[in-house]
Amino acid sequence: MTAPQTAVQAVNPRSGESVGRPVPETTAAQLAGLLAAAADAAAAFGTSEPGTRTALLHALAARLDERTDELAALAEQESGLPLTRLTGEVARTSGQLRLFAEVIEDGGYLEVHADSADPGAVPPQPELRRWLEPAGPVLIFAASNFPFAFSILGGDTASALASGCPVIVKAHPAHPGLSKLVGELASAVLAELDLPAGVFSVIFGDERGVEALRDPRIQAAGFTGSTAGGRFLFDVAAGRPAPIPFYGELGSINPAVVTPAAAAARGEQIAAGFAASMTLGTGQFCTKPGLLFLPAGHGMEQALAAAVGAVAAAPMLNARIRGQFDGGIASLARHDGVRRVSNGDAAVPANGSWAAPALFATTAQAVAADPASLTREYFGPASLMVEYRDAADLHAALAAVEGSLTATVHAEPGDDFDLAGLLGRLRVLAGRVIYNGWPTGVAVAWAMNHGGPWPATTSAAHTSVGATAIRRWLRPVCYQSLPDELLPAGLRAANPWHLPRRVNGVLTEAE
Amino acid sequence: MTAPQTAVQAVNPRSGESVGRPVPETTAAQLAGLLAAAADAAAAFGTSEPGTRTALLHALAARLDERTDELAALAEQESGLPLTRLTGEVARTSGQLRLFAEVIEDGGYLEVHADSADPGAVPPQPELRRWLEPAGPVLIFAASNFPFAFSILGGDTASALASGCPVIVKAHPAHPGLSKLVGELASAVLAELDLPAGVFSVIFGDERGVEALRDPRIQAAGFTGSTAGGRFLFDVAAGRPAPIPFYGELGSINPAVVTPAAAAARGEQIAAGFAASMTLGTGQFCTKPGLLFLPAGHGMEQALAAAVGAVAAAPMLNARIRGQFDGGIASLARHDGVRRVSNGDAAVPANGSWAAPALFATTAQAVAADPASLTREYFGPASLMVEYRDAADLHAALAAVEGSLTATVHAEPGDDFDLAGLLGRLRVLAGRVIYNGWPTGVAVAWAMNHGGPWPATTSAAHTSVGATAIRRWLRPVCYQSLPDELLPAGLRAANPWHLPRRVNGVLTEAE
Repeated sequence: MTAPQTAVQAVNPRSGESVGRPVPETTAAQLAGLLAAAADAAAAFGTSEPGTRTALLHALAARLDERTDELAALAEQESGLPLTRLTGEVARTSGQLRLFAEVIEDGGYLEVHADSADPGAVPPQPELRRWLEPAGPVLIFAASNFPFAFSILGGDTASALASGCPVIVKAHPAHPGLSKLVGELASAVLAELDLPAGVFSVIFGDERGVEALRDPRIQAAGFTGSTAGGRFLFDVAAGRPAPIPFYGELGSINPAVVTPAAAAARGEQIAAGFAASMTLGTGQFCTKPGLLFLPAGHGMEQALAAAVGAVAAAPMLNARIRGQFDGGIASLARHDGVRRVSNGDAAVPANGSWAAPALFATTAQAVAADPASLTREYFGPASLMVEYRDAADLHAALAAVEGSLTATVHAEPGDDFDLAGLLGRLRVLAGRVIYNGWPTGVAVAWAMNHGGPWPATTSAAHTSVGATAIRRWLRPVCYQSLPDELLPAGLRAANPWHLPRRVNGVLTEAE
Repeated sequence: MTAPQTAVQAVNPRSGESVGRPVPETTAAQLAGLLAAAADAAAAFGTSEPGTRTALLHALAARLDERTDELAALAEQESGLPLTRLTGEVARTSGQLRLFAEVIEDGGYLEVHADSADPGAVPPQPELRRWLEPAGPVLIFAASNFPFAFSILGGDTASALASGCPVIVKAHPAHPGLSKLVGELASAVLAELDLPAGVFSVIFGDERGVEALRDPRIQAAGFTGSTAGGRFLFDVAAGRPAPIPFYGELGSINPAVVTPAAAAARGEQIAAGFAASMTLGTGQFCTKPGLLFLPAGHGMEQALAAAVGAVAAAPMLNARIRGQFDGGIASLARHDGVRRVSNGDAAVPANGSWAAPALFATTAQAVAADPASLTREYFGPASLMVEYRDAADLHAALAAVEGSLTATVHAEPGDDFDLAGLLGRLRVLAGRVIYNGWPTGVAVAWAMNHGGPWPATTSAAHTSVGATAIRRWLRPVCYQSLPDELLPAGLRAANPWHLPRRVNGVLTEAE
């Protein structure tokens, strides 16, 4: 946590110059008002008709799309990311809002169950109806590296609003002007739809974020960021008198393994794909492949050095992140078992927070011997190539790797490597296993999983991307023997919301 | 946590005399072996065919049923609970094992998703297949009050084994002989089925339980017990270098509200039902109704005093629990705003750990003014009758009540009380809302929910009873672009496990 501040100033990472006017930190009194408004809005929003929430999500998506050029231009100034990428990210973000509208329309996410009474059961069974209801006001900590998709109206917000939870987003200080603008656009949409202002708000300031997390009105929290920051906030959430779920995505090393057959058949292609993936967004993807396991005698080093070396320096998100990256790779470079493959020191502008890609090399034995140094995530365009002698050597190193969002395998048809054994290890290590591809570029889809064992996420049981991300903001409630007219509308016998239901254990389609 | 001990001795709560020989505490070396065995068994058991796990659950259920008389007799000696109840509880427990076999056969719990590739999406979408996989070795802390249903082969164990997680159960010291016997029966079943011994084991000793919870091989934990004990263990789980989910059911006050119309129409019947519910199992149910809200002028006090007073003293589970109960109701009786309605001091045997039911009375105003004293759960046969003047008075008191497993309403057809407003509050307060019934007797069913906001459970997002309890032990894994033959069997295109699937977002029935 940084020291208290009274305003958040955006800095252009390309030039180091200020962008726009400082955004004032939310005051304690303002926060109290926003928390009260969120709590007041919870019951009506939480029991709103599906159409209320789909209309909100579609309207938010439309507003983002309408303002894409303006938003992407401001994001470029504040984040230093390329304009084309940012334009695409707006589309991804509006698409994500629309996916959750589809999730609402489908209704399966509510997990409706209806059991008939069975007086002969042990113990006797009354009539039961169960579904999921919104947890209540949710606090989202925005990330720096996706100023749209993991920020103010990103996936956490979209899924929480879809679930019927009021949302307070703590803006990331790296793009305060954009956060303020997107928040204002969203609040205007709420007003146009006659929804209470308390359904959505944005706060600024690290201290305010921590205070909000401690507030008893907040019922769950989401976070995407560093392991240190995430651990701090996880501990705050767990340490409350009444703890709440804290769904954090922290750090991930994302190992990629190339079999001998794949290295022989597609060495240059793999080198090019790897270099593109590890440097995408200046290496500031949570799914950046940080470890590339190659078989001894792979013959790919020259291609890798060339591919990584050909990627120009680019601005990192801010000076603090650039400083941490510099420190990280400097310590990696000093490690006895590590050598530098691609220099990455050339043509880095002095102003702003630019960094050049760097590739290092070590052995699987070294990784197994010192995983604390050699399996750490360096947020930025640096990765470690790891040479393994055989499957046992590879497995010993992978056994030392912590939980990860992704794990990747490159293999060939008819590969004689023990892929079943390798995949058996990787599925335990990671939440997404990729074959002959690269982990960056997380599809917003029904089947996506973006999560993994600690420290990839604080709860490997849930995803922060994809349709099922909505499950994080829901809690089951069971109604026993309620007269039909007293049940929540969606649970009534006539099924007015046309929900798929499990009736006495048997799944029935929506009528 | 109690001081370290080298053996656990059962005591008959009826007589205060020892039962059987002391059960030795698990040694640190034994625990290390059991943890290693569980970790070794995780991969094979976690990827086992559904039939392997249904066969295990059915065999465990059959073994319990075969040995019911012997098991119930031993449980009666160690727990002091009535034999008929314990016989029924064995049936409930074997039924619970069979329910989870049904859950496996249904397959919907795996949440299979399959998305086709869509290169035109933003970002481009590869082929994705997602389902839930077991979290890994699970640690279960058994409860004292249900020596079968929430103990060695209870719902936590049944759901975790169904999910494919190896289970280590930390036995409750109140019924060590029974825990040892049930553990031996279960281990024999594993051996008969040629399953690794590491799939299931039982440990004894509080210190060993905490050590196991700290062990990195344990991936999730379940607990049913006191708020103090649960909070301690929750903090241990959250404080690990790599925290794990801790699904604890702690304390619950279970408010019940009677409307003026219901009190007028069915006062005596409600009094009788309440007295039976609050004294069931000597008040040692986590769903015991601890607060009974009655309208001013209810005219039910005499009937309540008579009904509660007519319930004989019965042994509590052990002397420690009896001592805490005595202390709790003594402090309640001393409270300025509280008076005693039913004396409950008569005919309590001197030996053993017997207690007589007690009923106290206060006002909604007093509850709202001092919730810390007046909404505490007293584990045992004591409850507090709370008189309210009007709906506002009732709501002010309910607003001061912490999260609860259940909330109950008694009302009449055409009741002019604002039931919608009342239910709106109760659904936020509790995980199960009951109409014209009582909360004790938790049906083992698809639609059951046994959970609620803190302190009812550590995670209101999950249940510990009913089909969906299995979700606690699972984590999503997504496979991207894997050749069909490298996918886990259940995810392959031919759907050999006949699982219901969501294909490109559309639910499809099992083929």
